Amino acid sequence: MSAIPHSLVQKTARVSEEVTRPFPGSRKIHVTGSRPDLRVPMREVIQAPTRTAAGEEENPPIPVYDTSGPYTDPEVRVDLMQGLPSVRSAWIQERGDTEVLDGPSSRYGRDRAADPQLAHLRFEHIRAPRRARAGANITQMHYARRGIVTPEMEYVAIRENGRLQELREDPRYAALLRQHPGEAFGARIPEVITPEFVRDEVAAGRAVIPANINHPELEPMIIGRNFRVKINTNIGNSSVSSGIEEEVEKLVWSCRWGGDTLMDLSTGKHIHETREWVIRNSPVPIGTVPIYQALEKVDGKAEELTWELFRDTLIEQAEQGVDYFTIHAGVLLRYVPLTARRLTGIVSRGGSILAKWCLAHHRENFLYTHFEEICEIMKAYDVAFSLGDGLRPGSLADANDAAQFAELETLGELTKIAWRHDVQVMIEGPGHIPLQRVKENVDKELEDCFEAPFYTLGPLVTDIAPAYDHITSGIGAANIGWYGTAMLCYVTPKEHLGLPDKEDVRDGIITYRIAAHAADLAKGFPGVQLQDNALSKARFEFRWEDQFNLSLDPERARSFHDETLPQQAHKVA
Amino acid sequence: MSAIPHSLVQKTARVSEEVTRPFPGSRKIHVTGSRPDLRVPMREVIQAPTRTAAGEEENPPIPVYDTSGPYTDPEVRVDLMQGLPSVRSAWIQERGDTEVLDGPSSRYGRDRAADPQLAHLRFEHIRAPRRARAGANITQMHYARRGIVTPEMEYVAIRENGRLQELREDPRYAALLRQHPGEAFGARIPEVITPEFVRDEVAAGRAVIPANINHPELEPMIIGRNFRVKINTNIGNSSVSSGIEEEVEKLVWSCRWGGDTLMDLSTGKHIHETREWVIRNSPVPIGTVPIYQALEKVDGKAEELTWELFRDTLIEQAEQGVDYFTIHAGVLLRYVPLTARRLTGIVSRGGSILAKWCLAHHRENFLYTHFEEICEIMKAYDVAFSLGDGLRPGSLADANDAAQFAELETLGELTKIAWRHDVQVMIEGPGHIPLQRVKENVDKELEDCFEAPFYTLGPLVTDIAPAYDHITSGIGAANIGWYGTAMLCYVTPKEHLGLPDKEDVRDGIITYRIAAHAADLAKGFPGVQLQDNALSKARFEFRWEDQFNLSLDPERARSFHDETLPQQAHKVA
Repeated sequence: MSAIPHSLVQKTARVSEEVTRPFPGSRKIHVTGSRPDLRVPMREVIQAPTRTAAGEEENPPIPVYDTSGPYTDPEVRVDLMQGLPSVRSAWIQERGDTEVLDGPSSRYGRDRAADPQLAHLRFEHIRAPRRARAGANITQMHYARRGIVTPEMEYVAIRENGRLQELREDPRYAALLRQHPGEAFGARIPEVITPEFVRDEVAAGRAVIPANINHPELEPMIIGRNFRVKINTNIGNSSVSSGIEEEVEKLVWSCRWGGDTLMDLSTGKHIHETREWVIRNSPVPIGTVPIYQALEKVDGKAEELTWELFRDTLIEQAEQGVDYFTIHAGVLLRYVPLTARRLTGIVSRGGSILAKWCLAHHRENFLYTHFEEICEIMKAYDVAFSLGDGLRPGSLADANDAAQFAELETLGELTKIAWRHDVQVMIEGPGHIPLQRVKENVDKELEDCFEAPFYTLGPLVTDIAPAYDHITSGIGAANIGWYGTAMLCYVTPKEHLGLPDKEDVRDGIITYRIAAHAADLAKGFPGVQLQDNALSKARFEFRWEDQFNLSLDPERARSFHDETLPQQAHKVA
Repeated sequence: MSAIPHSLVQKTARVSEEVTRPFPGSRKIHVTGSRPDLRVPMREVIQAPTRTAAGEEENPPIPVYDTSGPYTDPEVRVDLMQGLPSVRSAWIQERGDTEVLDGPSSRYGRDRAADPQLAHLRFEHIRAPRRARAGANITQMHYARRGIVTPEMEYVAIRENGRLQELREDPRYAALLRQHPGEAFGARIPEVITPEFVRDEVAAGRAVIPANINHPELEPMIIGRNFRVKINTNIGNSSVSSGIEEEVEKLVWSCRWGGDTLMDLSTGKHIHETREWVIRNSPVPIGTVPIYQALEKVDGKAEELTWELFRDTLIEQAEQGVDYFTIHAGVLLRYVPLTARRLTGIVSRGGSILAKWCLAHHRENFLYTHFEEICEIMKAYDVAFSLGDGLRPGSLADANDAAQFAELETLGELTKIAWRHDVQVMIEGPGHIPLQRVKENVDKELEDCFEAPFYTLGPLVTDIAPAYDHITSGIGAANIGWYGTAMLCYVTPKEHLGLPDKEDVRDGIITYRIAAHAADLAKGFPGVQLQDNALSKARFEFRWEDQFNLSLDPERARSFHDETLPQQAHKVA
């Protein structure tokens, strides 16, 4: 008999029904790589023909990058209770450099697994964790540096290309492939993304493939400025808000609308169990901020945090399958006084926890002093670093100040250390920055951190629009993406005000898909104008259904259209 | 007995009640200029003190630019049936260069005034129109070039400054006036906007004060790249949609949320009567596209348009008080073939009307051939030109193409002609432009049109997000505003899909206020970071009410906050 509560079973059924529905006018396709189990999913939007005086003219299907996972595949029946089918297990096993453990090796993980009171919340099909064999390094960066093109690398190459070579040879696409030349500010984007190019970028540290060996369900993706700009979304319950069901639903929702990665920022009593549900059902990489959970374990008292407790938390989460960890190792004791004269002090939650710890003990940040040991853990599971910007500005007034840039320089130093371990790294960035000072952030990050992928929150280009901060930050995000940021962390309308609901998540994601796509267009990423051209042609020809189906949010476009009866006069801009 | 229908009377009462309500935590203030009837309205946001261990610290009131007119002034009881009180009548009369006519001098205006069937729709208190005396030129540009500083010029100088000189001398504001240096791309923004500076900018054609002598109700404002970036909103009924009441309500709504000017794009049977209601109740300049109404008069048959009919329409609208006319005089016959190979042809409604006329008659655009006569009409009422971009791109694919730029060059030629008549000019711009090609539009406009103010629609930086085009265009708008565009024409979420309702208008306006403010910050306009700094300080100190009240949309910020019970942890970014 299942120990899962009835409400969750019900919810599961409902979620499956709502989100398994494919996008209207679309079909799921798979492009097979060099081995039959390397099948890269894409979505293809079918178009109606153009009616002309001479008869009908075909409009070819338009492939689009697809983050939605098996949820939108009519061939797959997803059962959240079972978790997603595995994509990468065979690849990981074949490499022969990992071993399956008897059970969790973290103390906390073992305690949770043994606690009968958690049975009703626990995901039923927990696999035993996998870890690198003693002495082995199993990161994508390690393979890349040894000249090995992994299936993951080939997968992302196919995914980034979006069938462009085939379309280029197909005369039906000739007119639709017109594209403006880009201005890429030093990014080196090739006309075709080859597996070898991916390998080279990962080896150089310019790109990251977050892919924990304990998250074989994920569909590999890549983050780097010579690839498509990605977006991250955040979910997270809290003591005042949602439970496990709601977080899983938000995850699926995030993937549906275009989230490339997802951070689970949950707080409260059941972080561990929530995370298991989320990872087992996630086709996208999952990130966390382990210090949040560590703080829960000491009842919120930052000064009681210890390296041992934190270390156990890293192992606990790595063995569940978290793909990247935000680690605020750049918040150094000597930088804390630099924030004293700020308008808004330290606003990063991780940053303020670490600053509090440093000041309480008057000792250096233990994440910094134990950084090499953290690298050892990261490389045993292939967890990527997301080096946190704990001193990011919380207001325009504090943008680009001494504290922010001092930390960034330290993140560069840590990047070099991580790379010595062949551990993948991305660098987190701000925050609140006026438009004319955004580029300086990218330029400095690329220089100080040796082109490690930049991953920024927004930035918000003004402070005066709470309730519209998806937009204030979407403006900054489009620009910073254009200048060279590899991944944009989304912001919802509720930022600064409260917890986002599903519609807020959707608004945030679509805003960030717009920003990322605008950046791809501006950089001149090959083929990305195809969808714009096809939609505009459909619009001009009054093929309304095609216009809806080619849009980022077909459902809302259709419903807005149906609200009023538009006249041709209003469809001209 | 009133001839106005009961429904309108009811609506009037309701509108007054809803929008007369001042903003929370704010008071209306007036800064008096060199004469007692020159009183410039501003809004001042009151702040609570900061509670510290040492007691309370005062937080001074923050002045904000206020477009809302008398509607938010508790001292004024607005009655839409009466129209707004006059701001400028005495100034216009004193100049002694205009005369009051017996009645409308357009044939159409006289016919409508005499039609008893329209009595139930007609605004009750129509003033006799005013016109320049024979031989007189009464434009703000004409006065400026003769060295005269008008009350309108002084008014906008005070308005743009926002009490900054006083605040600079007040120690309470010292920390809050910190601001990042701007990057203004050649704009020359002084530390203090003096009336003489305004005069000089208007004289040079770099700025426009749209202020028809028949719209004395308006609160003068200025459009130019050395001033605050402005936003335009559009309203407009149609045969399928709203009536007069709804349009007036949208006008008031637009002013409330921050629309600096408003275009009335109404179609249908009662354009003339709707416009009268709108202008009489508008504290902001009103623009129109006269060709739309002219087309109605020939039952939508573009080929039946004539110069005589168009001329009568210009006079009709100028005598009602329209402050700027969009005139598509740059759509030349020889440019039409340049659009043949476009993906989306001609998408401007005005552009397609004129192109159709040119092709039907195989003659040059009559707006171009009669341009000098149009100037004569403009200068008799001080109507400003908004030279329309009838060949703007309707998709990324068509951006910055030969047709678009050929028309822009012709608009430059027409600017010189208008300026010979001392008629004020602004230049309309696109449209759909990828981010990396936006700046080219501004640079070319400034060069080809001799720094006449640029007034752009968006631009939308991607085509793939119908239902979110306020955001796709808000990104472009922030950037193009930064580069030097003087006024941004808003786009609502319903663009391309249908007619906006009130909430769509609000979303569009706030998005564009964000874009304009981001541009002001980026250009380094003096004092504009004050509101950001004050809000961020309030946020950091958990003064929630102050945070709401200092935001662009206090009502939505408060309601989003109240939906969930946020924890401190979620308010850190």
